[in-house]
Amino acid sequence: MRDVCVVGIGSTKYGKSDLSARELMASAAQGAIADAGIDPDRIASGIFGNAFGVAEKQGHLGPLIMTALGLDTKPATVVETACASGGTAFHHGYREVAGGFSDAVLIGGVERVSMLDTLTATTYFAYGSDFTYEGGTGCSFPGLYATMARSYFQRYGATEQDLANVAIKNHENALHNPLAHLQKRITMEDVMGSMKVADPLKLYDACPFSDGAAAAILCDEKTAREFTDTPIFVEASARAGSIAALHDRPDLTSLPGAVLAGQTALQQAKLTVDQIDFFEVHDCFTIAEVAASEDLGLFKKGTGAKAATDGLTRIGSKRPINPSGGLKAKGHPVGATGAGQVVEVVKQLRGEAGGRQVENARRGLTHNVGATGGTVVVNILSRRS
Amino acid sequence: MRDVCVVGIGSTKYGKSDLSARELMASAAQGAIADAGIDPDRIASGIFGNAFGVAEKQGHLGPLIMTALGLDTKPATVVETACASGGTAFHHGYREVAGGFSDAVLIGGVERVSMLDTLTATTYFAYGSDFTYEGGTGCSFPGLYATMARSYFQRYGATEQDLANVAIKNHENALHNPLAHLQKRITMEDVMGSMKVADPLKLYDACPFSDGAAAAILCDEKTAREFTDTPIFVEASARAGSIAALHDRPDLTSLPGAVLAGQTALQQAKLTVDQIDFFEVHDCFTIAEVAASEDLGLFKKGTGAKAATDGLTRIGSKRPINPSGGLKAKGHPVGATGAGQVVEVVKQLRGEAGGRQVENARRGLTHNVGATGGTVVVNILSRRS
Repeated sequence: MRDVCVVGIGSTKYGKSDLSARELMASAAQGAIADAGIDPDRIASGIFGNAFGVAEKQGHLGPLIMTALGLDTKPATVVETACASGGTAFHHGYREVAGGFSDAVLIGGVERVSMLDTLTATTYFAYGSDFTYEGGTGCSFPGLYATMARSYFQRYGATEQDLANVAIKNHENALHNPLAHLQKRITMEDVMGSMKVADPLKLYDACPFSDGAAAAILCDEKTAREFTDTPIFVEASARAGSIAALHDRPDLTSLPGAVLAGQTALQQAKLTVDQIDFFEVHDCFTIAEVAASEDLGLFKKGTGAKAATDGLTRIGSKRPINPSGGLKAKGHPVGATGAGQVVEVVKQLRGEAGGRQVENARRGLTHNVGATGGTVVVNILSRRS
Repeated sequence: MRDVCVVGIGSTKYGKSDLSARELMASAAQGAIADAGIDPDRIASGIFGNAFGVAEKQGHLGPLIMTALGLDTKPATVVETACASGGTAFHHGYREVAGGFSDAVLIGGVERVSMLDTLTATTYFAYGSDFTYEGGTGCSFPGLYATMARSYFQRYGATEQDLANVAIKNHENALHNPLAHLQKRITMEDVMGSMKVADPLKLYDACPFSDGAAAAILCDEKTAREFTDTPIFVEASARAGSIAALHDRPDLTSLPGAVLAGQTALQQAKLTVDQIDFFEVHDCFTIAEVAASEDLGLFKKGTGAKAATDGLTRIGSKRPINPSGGLKAKGHPVGATGAGQVVEVVKQLRGEAGGRQVENARRGLTHNVGATGGTVVVNILSRRS
């Protein structure tokens, strides 16, 4: 297995865009190519996360993106694991390089949903659930995550205010992220006063529907050193699954796939969670960030919500979570999200994160979830020098 | 790079099904697991081709399939490269094993479209084209392939009767394939008298819309030998792309990605096309089989249509093409098709193909196309003993 490095990153701003998915993805890819300084002809293939291309009547996005980049002879794959599609693209790209098949690969993810009305968008998102038993019976994603929140509250005595503190912190972080969809400070009153989406979750517990794309160029170490003296290394890329339907699981407050993927990634990297300096986790709803912080071992089961309230996950604390603003405030362009997490981690490890910089960040972890954990991808990146 | 073997295959019958995509895929996977005789717990992951899950309101099929198989902790990816999705799933599964990441992987593909009316199904298929410039302007896939046929006729003087001979041969082969969607002998009069779909292509030049699923278990050689003394080896798995939109290409009678993927696969396998005993190619329309036979080097450019008329592609000839019946008669469950080609090749190499058996078949090639060649996957399999 070869060491794999990230040598280039690119991202559009997240938010509402008039560009098509192909244009968004090509834009982010061009950014990553320019950032790496690589001759595009050296890119062997493209792997892209996308979930709702069909919403703009476009499947088979791979060749369209490669053609837009002038790389039409190179093969491309679209991968779909719901909201973890971007992380899955990174994972397969990592393996393509680590396994010795290619020396340079373009990975990324893209989504465009802002042309859909909210009801249609929510319905499309629900296709990522076990639709026969969940979405199709009216249990949309807000409902599924509300079920997790209710179960967590009942078992551990946490409160809506604890969850609100997750949202407030992530909005605060996003103020310093020029790519973020929501750049707006919010207060406890704002969150508590926002409309109920699915009790106990309110509008400000939920991430927005975002358009956007993110990309990275992955190389083997030898190739990487042609482009940079300070490559960012992929120390681990692990995935695991959970029983697809939430109601079939014994515990509603934890994602089994996140526990397993997290443990596997730490074993691959030969690290403990204490050696990770910051975490980009999948906070599609505030409760999801709390569950992630426990599933990954940052906090003991049942204490993650209080940790958020106690400020233990802020930048400057021991366990900074979502310095980018997370899905909650940076935004959630579904297929792009996992790739965007990698973009943020690389920026942090390079010391290029401006007002949201985690000081002396040497190792960062990404945690990307499909649906309620049917797919979970955990990657660990580092600067070794 | 490790040698990779196919140790188990499974497939549903192709045709119209009342089963959901998850049920179809799980059924084919269970067949492959039983055929291999492998303990399912040894399967590290699943990779599945699917293009139109959204047609039954279901994305994120991976965890649903793994959960149905009792393998919910194992990660799964859905890959989408339009009609080449199944071949792409095989390709990524091959690399997962060859690269040393996993010793046993489940690959497959599935589609269910028969609940759609013909207009809706054709529209969904058109999403696989460059929809802005092709499908969205009214140029559906029959129109795109008719353009290729017209161009071929003009340049090489071939006729509608030549193409009809492709259909007649593939229907003849499918009579001996119990999995085939269309098991019906057809005559020149049947083809020539069928309704025009897109001039010069008629209904009998086109493959049907099929439901179905196909699966295979891939292992490294050492693991494979636990299960069989006669594993089928993957000698090559190559992919390439073409400019996405047909009208942007200098030559409408050839798929650049097919030429490149074919050459790459032969190089990987260290073989010439003369050493391949039979070919499962992507005949979504009869003209596509002719183009494939030339792109892969079976016949000189411009002579493939006449070769079909001269019977040079029948079972028993030097270049048997689509002994299974091909997409034309075996059927075309989009995401499954490329995986189904592998199933057929393995059956032939095992000598289990009954009335359609290619005698002394030692090496077979699959050619799976997304759209008009934006994606092309070529695999070469062999029995070495």
